[in-house]
Amino acid sequence: MNQFNDQESGVFDDALLTTLGRQAIELPSWAFGNAGTRFKVYGTPGTPRTIQEKIADAAQVHRLTGLAPSVALHIPWDLVDDFGKLAAFADDQGVRLGTINSNTFQDDDYKFGSLTHVDPAIRRKAVDHHLRCIEVMDATGSRDLKIWLPDGTNYPGQGDLRGRQDRLAESLRTIYDRLGPDQRLVLEYKIFEPFFYTMDVPDWGTAFAHVTALGERALVCLDTGHHAPSTNIEFIVAQLLRLGKLGSFDFNSRFYADDDLIVGAADPFQLFRILAEVVRGGGLDDGSPVAFMLDQCHNIEDKIPGQIRSVLNVQEMTARALLIDTESLRAAQDAGDVLAANAVYMDAFYTDVRPALGDWRESRGLPRDPMAAYATSGYAELIAAERAGGVQAGWGA
Amino acid sequence: MNQFNDQESGVFDDALLTTLGRQAIELPSWAFGNAGTRFKVYGTPGTPRTIQEKIADAAQVHRLTGLAPSVALHIPWDLVDDFGKLAAFADDQGVRLGTINSNTFQDDDYKFGSLTHVDPAIRRKAVDHHLRCIEVMDATGSRDLKIWLPDGTNYPGQGDLRGRQDRLAESLRTIYDRLGPDQRLVLEYKIFEPFFYTMDVPDWGTAFAHVTALGERALVCLDTGHHAPSTNIEFIVAQLLRLGKLGSFDFNSRFYADDDLIVGAADPFQLFRILAEVVRGGGLDDGSPVAFMLDQCHNIEDKIPGQIRSVLNVQEMTARALLIDTESLRAAQDAGDVLAANAVYMDAFYTDVRPALGDWRESRGLPRDPMAAYATSGYAELIAAERAGGVQAGWGA
Amino acid sequence: MNQFNDQESGVFDDALLTTLGRQAIELPSWAFGNAGTRFKVYGTPGTPRTIQEKIADAAQVHRLTGLAPSVALHIPWDLVDDFGKLAAFADDQGVRLGTINSNTFQDDDYKFGSLTHVDPAIRRKAVDHHLRCIEVMDATGSRDLKIWLPDGTNYPGQGDLRGRQDRLAESLRTIYDRLGPDQRLVLEYKIFEPFFYTMDVPDWGTAFAHVTALGERALVCLDTGHHAPSTNIEFIVAQLLRLGKLGSFDFNSRFYADDDLIVGAADPFQLFRILAEVVRGGGLDDGSPVAFMLDQCHNIEDKIPGQIRSVLNVQEMTARALLIDTESLRAAQDAGDVLAANAVYMDAFYTDVRPALGDWRESRGLPRDPMAAYATSGYAELIAAERAGGVQAGWGA
Amino acid sequence: MNQFNDQESGVFDDALLTTLGRQAIELPSWAFGNAGTRFKVYGTPGTPRTIQEKIADAAQVHRLTGLAPSVALHIPWDLVDDFGKLAAFADDQGVRLGTINSNTFQDDDYKFGSLTHVDPAIRRKAVDHHLRCIEVMDATGSRDLKIWLPDGTNYPGQGDLRGRQDRLAESLRTIYDRLGPDQRLVLEYKIFEPFFYTMDVPDWGTAFAHVTALGERALVCLDTGHHAPSTNIEFIVAQLLRLGKLGSFDFNSRFYADDDLIVGAADPFQLFRILAEVVRGGGLDDGSPVAFMLDQCHNIEDKIPGQIRSVLNVQEMTARALLIDTESLRAAQDAGDVLAANAVYMDAFYTDVRPALGDWRESRGLPRDPMAAYATSGYAELIAAERAGGVQAGWGA
Repeated sequence: MNQFNDQESGVFDDALLTTLGRQAIELPSWAFGNAGTRFKVYGTPGTPRTIQEKIADAAQVHRLTGLAPSVALHIPWDLVDDFGKLAAFADDQGVRLGTINSNTFQDDDYKFGSLTHVDPAIRRKAVDHHLRCIEVMDATGSRDLKIWLPDGTNYPGQGDLRGRQDRLAESLRTIYDRLGPDQRLVLEYKIFEPFFYTMDVPDWGTAFAHVTALGERALVCLDTGHHAPSTNIEFIVAQLLRLGKLGSFDFNSRFYADDDLIVGAADPFQLFRILAEVVRGGGLDDGSPVAFMLDQCHNIEDKIPGQIRSVLNVQEMTARALLIDTESLRAAQDAGDVLAANAVYMDAFYTDVRPALGDWRESRGLPRDPMAAYATSGYAELIAAERAGGVQAGWGA
Repeated sequence: MNQFNDQESGVFDDALLTTLGRQAIELPSWAFGNAGTRFKVYGTPGTPRTIQEKIADAAQVHRLTGLAPSVALHIPWDLVDDFGKLAAFADDQGVRLGTINSNTFQDDDYKFGSLTHVDPAIRRKAVDHHLRCIEVMDATGSRDLKIWLPDGTNYPGQGDLRGRQDRLAESLRTIYDRLGPDQRLVLEYKIFEPFFYTMDVPDWGTAFAHVTALGERALVCLDTGHHAPSTNIEFIVAQLLRLGKLGSFDFNSRFYADDDLIVGAADPFQLFRILAEVVRGGGLDDGSPVAFMLDQCHNIEDKIPGQIRSVLNVQEMTARALLIDTESLRAAQDAGDVLAANAVYMDAFYTDVRPALGDWRESRGLPRDPMAAYATSGYAELIAAERAGGVQAGWGA
Repeated sequence: MNQFNDQESGVFDDALLTTLGRQAIELPSWAFGNAGTRFKVYGTPGTPRTIQEKIADAAQVHRLTGLAPSVALHIPWDLVDDFGKLAAFADDQGVRLGTINSNTFQDDDYKFGSLTHVDPAIRRKAVDHHLRCIEVMDATGSRDLKIWLPDGTNYPGQGDLRGRQDRLAESLRTIYDRLGPDQRLVLEYKIFEPFFYTMDVPDWGTAFAHVTALGERALVCLDTGHHAPSTNIEFIVAQLLRLGKLGSFDFNSRFYADDDLIVGAADPFQLFRILAEVVRGGGLDDGSPVAFMLDQCHNIEDKIPGQIRSVLNVQEMTARALLIDTESLRAAQDAGDVLAANAVYMDAFYTDVRPALGDWRESRGLPRDPMAAYATSGYAELIAAERAGGVQAGWGA
Repeated sequence: MNQFNDQESGVFDDALLTTLGRQAIELPSWAFGNAGTRFKVYGTPGTPRTIQEKIADAAQVHRLTGLAPSVALHIPWDLVDDFGKLAAFADDQGVRLGTINSNTFQDDDYKFGSLTHVDPAIRRKAVDHHLRCIEVMDATGSRDLKIWLPDGTNYPGQGDLRGRQDRLAESLRTIYDRLGPDQRLVLEYKIFEPFFYTMDVPDWGTAFAHVTALGERALVCLDTGHHAPSTNIEFIVAQLLRLGKLGSFDFNSRFYADDDLIVGAADPFQLFRILAEVVRGGGLDDGSPVAFMLDQCHNIEDKIPGQIRSVLNVQEMTARALLIDTESLRAAQDAGDVLAANAVYMDAFYTDVRPALGDWRESRGLPRDPMAAYATSGYAELIAAERAGGVQAGWGA
């Protein structure tokens, strides 16, 4: 190990290039709409009004980075009459439709729960919404149904925690049984928000228990902003990979709560550690079951370059994680040489991979600097002009 | 000290009754409007459309509890043409207008700051908004201008932290100098939200440094939901009282972030400890400068009974805090008898003061059980029927 | 539901009395030795020098409370030549030997791990230590082997997280397979300390995954001080009970980290919520598999009354939890009446059960006020006089 | 701004080199002794037995890095009969004696407080200990008396928070008044540990209030491990610099509590942000009043290379912070271009300064790679052989 990396910074080895070459990060359609806090949502010129415009924006990110070949949809926000046609539209734009996200947090009926509600009629409504999502998946060819369950309670005593779990298990069973043989259910957990006392799937343990009970095609989705302060997220990544139950990531970053900031913005070293465990656990191997997605809110920054920045950050940290000298690391670990092991690890983190990734992009006909390319592309001005009128997409639409 | 409180539970001594008799908890007008999370705001029948309807609801809380004689306004949410007339309306309802809260988080100009903005024109606009608030105070006779500054940044590098502080100091100076001799500026701090990297007044130290620089009539507002996890809030209460700078409380409770739950709902013992320090520091003495207010969001529970529950909780914990046997406590503290001191303290906390408070209410012509009285009052049904049509008040209106 | 509990406070119903009658809280032998922080361990007169003296002190707690019929041992701290004789000694004192706790954090060999160590020889040594613990169990008749695994790392890169899990699984398998048919392995988790980057069993999900892989007689131990800030512990209690994997509790309380304070001292309402879920999930039913233990450090308060206070607090909160009017609660929950449900719940919490528990004790020939009884018993003075000389027990002995 | 830093990595400009040239990081004598957790302290061969051996080890760090010209002492741990002679010894080793740290956490008298104790005799004893420290300063020529006050309480009610503050103010006044005209009192704050309910100086606001009351030569010490989770430390740095009250840093890093890990190990980006605010606020200017110190516990890693790694990390992050293109940053900030401002900031963070710092070292006759130089120096083997026998230094000696 050598803290001064002698290799020419532009040189990645073949294995690393192969891995980078297959990296794909799914963009959420909702990242292109307006988002904000409970205090204020700021609109910006050019914000999409339709799912087609969201897809067009996502395609722009892919065009400049080569990293984002698919777009996740949110149902009902992105409902259209003809999903086959929408898939064709996406294809024309150079991307494809990806994960289907169900939404059970905006109907008045779900105030006290959806899949966990005490009222069987409301539970049925929520289950049916998921079955409708699977129909969409059938039409779009999507593999994954992602369930982020917003159910929970605000006050001690408000709900029967145990009963809610039992009803959740039953609802998930009905949904899971409807999946096609190539489809998966991915269950996301979150410690709090929109509820402030309990969430019905608050932690990875709960998600793991449910998906294990469901079956092989049920997996866990890890959103990097959904943990208690101080949680070691890379440990969970390692553990879920070991258990064969890591289905996907929702990447973003946070200083406090579920801040949904640009990936890597708050704690780039944490992102490195997460990706190092992904690599260690085979999550970037050929045929890996792990899907990489973003989930973000560009409250105050421009959305398209915000997404570009995010996918580049994931790629940069992936490249760093792949640069870890695993032989030296293992040798230091086995020798109990704490400082040497840490040094090997940090050496990869501190290596500036940006020039080499610029080369990588150029070699593939992509702009060396996608942020600069976007700034000069005229796209922002174009959509600001074209998208006058109509209702800008946001979380409520 | 005796863990089995021998006193008849209904018996409060005279000093305690005097203190209870002067307790007043200000209600926020916005608590009666709809509130929610970034995911969803649920509306409910009977929600006020106007400031007059909010005042009417607040008056209902006071009528049933005798604890809430004033209503805080939010400007511009509660702007009217004639505040003198509004004050008279409040008077008719049996309450008065209280603290004026400025709002600088909902204008597009304030996206990157208000009192701290780099652009002098926007700073001026924000300062002018506060001067307008002082005009309202002149008209309503309100003593306090409360500034919760929502300014901050989301990303490292986005703003110059130092420059923002300097501009804030200058803006506050201009506002403070406009205050009348009987008016006060109360500066609230908050660790995060709506911004996720820095807030310009994130902690009590910052608020204290600013109000100390301003002068005697500048004080700190402590919102119980605005701290980092693990923060010992009662210590801050004790310290600010000692420093003569505790101006007011915004009471609510939390499990995670600024959850704005009913006071005492999440951690009743914390509320007890806070009120014990208030008592210890003279915050409930005659002529105390400390104002007691609520700041809450009744996202899923009914708003008027939510407010009733909150003021009752404050009163119940105040009564418990006043029951601490201070002589025994001091003796145990001085003797280094940890278990005895803790036992004296806990004995007050565990005493069930509810029957005695029921007596207290009856003796003053108030309903023994205000929650039950509200439920059977017909008020909820009345406003649900009367307030059809119009736009329900919320944070955006 | 009625916020003013009309029942005479001294009256518990028969079911409640039956449950109280079978409540048993195991005391840790180490609670009677000296404990402290890394900064200082304070000694006190009368601190036990031997396991026999620890048992004598524990028996004193049981004599005064009727709640603590067994004592947990820590191996090697409490190693004796003849455990049969020690069991007889305990029996003479009126208590019995309970859970056996393995200790793998004080041998120089375990600096970089015990059951997870990269070196098979050290792993074997750690496994053998557990097999020796099972031999002790055979001799004492103890049911439970509790493993709190102190293994972890301090620096990113120091260890291979995945490899450590795999080795842990293998070590646990060897230990589990040695258990007799009536013996159980209880795996405890802890977020941090003594290691500061990763712990090998940091959360309930990890413990659950391991014990599920092991088999039916492997269960999880929940220490109430071992979670990230903001974690909803009662949810985990409910979930583990639902999954049939809650083996035992280590009770204590905390404001910040693993503070090991007296149970209920930091957040009595949290203790109530935990016990409410225990009741709800059948954890206090006849034949329940859940063991209740304390794990505390009386750094500055007297140890024996510190343990008395703790078991009384558990009992008081259990009584409150048993007072929840479950029918009214269920009705309010089913109606979506948030405030009513919360009120039913809080009504139980706010009921002062202390007089009724005093009656309960008197009816069983126990002192009405065990704290006062201990203070006047002369026991403290006796042991202070008798236990002169020798080495006081602590974590290092 | 350009995300691909075109400058040759070895090229620092003159201003940057000047700043680097005057950077000095004080080492704590106690970092070279054994340290650990309450569970276990591991000893290592070669650990110093005396303050002279600690100074020799510290000098070794300075010899290899050129960054650590002084050593902080802890009184009474480092008491000697003749401090003039000790200063001469240090001088011979090429370093000097620095900050004097008082210790009031290891005397049995201080169990319930030192400067805050209710008993005037114990307070006097604690004050006298500080006066004795000032005598040491007079002898060593040290400028700073650093007070980390370990006083606090473990249980609600145990102490009178207000009275403790008043007594603290009085004690500090007596100490401050004894300082010579060139001496300073630096007051450190800490959220918790060794006490778990309150600390008497828990936050920067409290430290600031006290030092402001004392006078100009009283300042605040910021230990980077002493905050609540989620606290924005760089904001406090910026604020204290603005208020003229930042006296010194105790650098270390943490994932959970006061972990005392190697600086920059847990969150290198946080270290960057802190140093960026130091630079912004003039904390590295010529004549800056800010002292930079380490405070760490090398529980499991070798101590001397642990200190080398730490000072190098501070230097590397300082260099990165100095590379921020302040003009571009200001322009982007003023334009409200969130992404551009963040990019300028991150560009400096991601620049690999290690080769240039290797050049810097070589140009000054220092080893290019101090870690490698230490490993091959034979020093570790030498002290392991020479320091046989005696009692290794630790926190208790």
